[in-house]
Amino acid sequence: MQSERLCVVLVATRNPLNLGAAARAMSNFGFARLRVVHPYPAAFREARSAVGASKLMAAAEEYATVAEAVADCTLVVGTTAVGSRTLQHPLERLEHGARLIRRRMAAGRVALLFGSEKRGLSNADFSHCHWLMHIPTSRGNISMNLGQAVAVCLYELARDARAPRPAEKQPLASAGEVERMTGLLFDTLYASGFLIRKPTSDAEERVRRLVRRLKLSARDLPSWLGILRQIVWKLRTPSGKPR
Amino acid sequence: MQSERLCVVLVATRNPLNLGAAARAMSNFGFARLRVVHPYPAAFREARSAVGASKLMAAAEEYATVAEAVADCTLVVGTTAVGSRTLQHPLERLEHGARLIRRRMAAGRVALLFGSEKRGLSNADFSHCHWLMHIPTSRGNISMNLGQAVAVCLYELARDARAPRPAEKQPLASAGEVERMTGLLFDTLYASGFLIRKPTSDAEERVRRLVRRLKLSARDLPSWLGILRQIVWKLRTPSGKPR
Repeated sequence: MQSERLCVVLVATRNPLNLGAAARAMSNFGFARLRVVHPYPAAFREARSAVGASKLMAAAEEYATVAEAVADCTLVVGTTAVGSRTLQHPLERLEHGARLIRRRMAAGRVALLFGSEKRGLSNADFSHCHWLMHIPTSRGNISMNLGQAVAVCLYELARDARAPRPAEKQPLASAGEVERMTGLLFDTLYASGFLIRKPTSDAEERVRRLVRRLKLSARDLPSWLGILRQIVWKLRTPSGKPR
Repeated sequence: MQSERLCVVLVATRNPLNLGAAARAMSNFGFARLRVVHPYPAAFREARSAVGASKLMAAAEEYATVAEAVADCTLVVGTTAVGSRTLQHPLERLEHGARLIRRRMAAGRVALLFGSEKRGLSNADFSHCHWLMHIPTSRGNISMNLGQAVAVCLYELARDARAPRPAEKQPLASAGEVERMTGLLFDTLYASGFLIRKPTSDAEERVRRLVRRLKLSARDLPSWLGILRQIVWKLRTPSGKPR
């Protein structure tokens, strides 16, 4: 397994002990790439300067948004405890999900997202994900401690790491490219009147998920960008005006 | 699995947070019987009185010796990180060990021992064990946090023996539906000027292949049709004209 291809992304973590615990579990199971998205500043500072903070914690990269943290990844997986929430994404049990992730790590970088201790990942965070994964827990208590959830997921990912499987035939577009296409699609949808700007609407999240489900290849992405650019241009150009 | 047959035995735990974390993981994975052997008194007091301490922590039984803590068990398993220590016991990897434990839980009570944060289990502790178990970790860092080690072991013990059920695959759109979408996309591309009608061009074929490679699901197809219809309508409506 190419373990350097996995990015553990902690979103809005509050407790420095959990940041440290996540880093320790990564080190235990041979993963090195830690990314944090707007952690509580004090937590991040404290965790980094803690006595014995691992090299891994010191090398953690900080991002302002989930989009930036996953931009270079070709697969983005969110973790969730699956409570009463209605999920709009395919949901995999850890056991099977880990197998899918290992397979995809042969082809490119994979981001595994963990939400905050209190609320987990938001629907906006989820909208950057291709699918979600949950740890099968007892019905009586589904909410795991963050550091323990990271440890269990990485244990399962690292288990019987067999020889790397052949890469997928078509390399997929990275999350950054897909987000670029999503942005152009938003422009198109607003310009055409399909979407109307309403601050409370989750329409953009629904469209973002729709695009993620297309599984766009890196090879085809430029064609779609070209198509959308032309449509946006045309929609914004008053008709009759010479091109 | 008869989960009430497993006793998690924490020996000489120092940190109240780790006692609490072990209890939380037990609750997550459906195990209820926690036993502690001469924990640091302050740690035990603090963990028991912590806000939100689970019933499980409150019901933890305290023992003076390992011998007493495992007296009613028919199988006693110690956990270890396996460093430079020479072990006198058979050693099982967690994956296989958990299978053996599950099997034995059908017949009687099983104790699973975890040592202190600093030294793990002593040779004296080991001498009460039938065999030892370790979590396969990276060679670079074999020492796991206690709470995380408990979580990983219990996750593996609770693992559903049955085949994991992958999330339902989304049925793909039929060729007829995909072609309907392709037709609308052609309309969009001509209306926007991306395509120009030239009888000899293979542009339509290239676009058709592009759409086929999206592997559209039956569920998402109507959304894309709606989007394209709106764009075509907007492109064909002279701007300024009321909708």
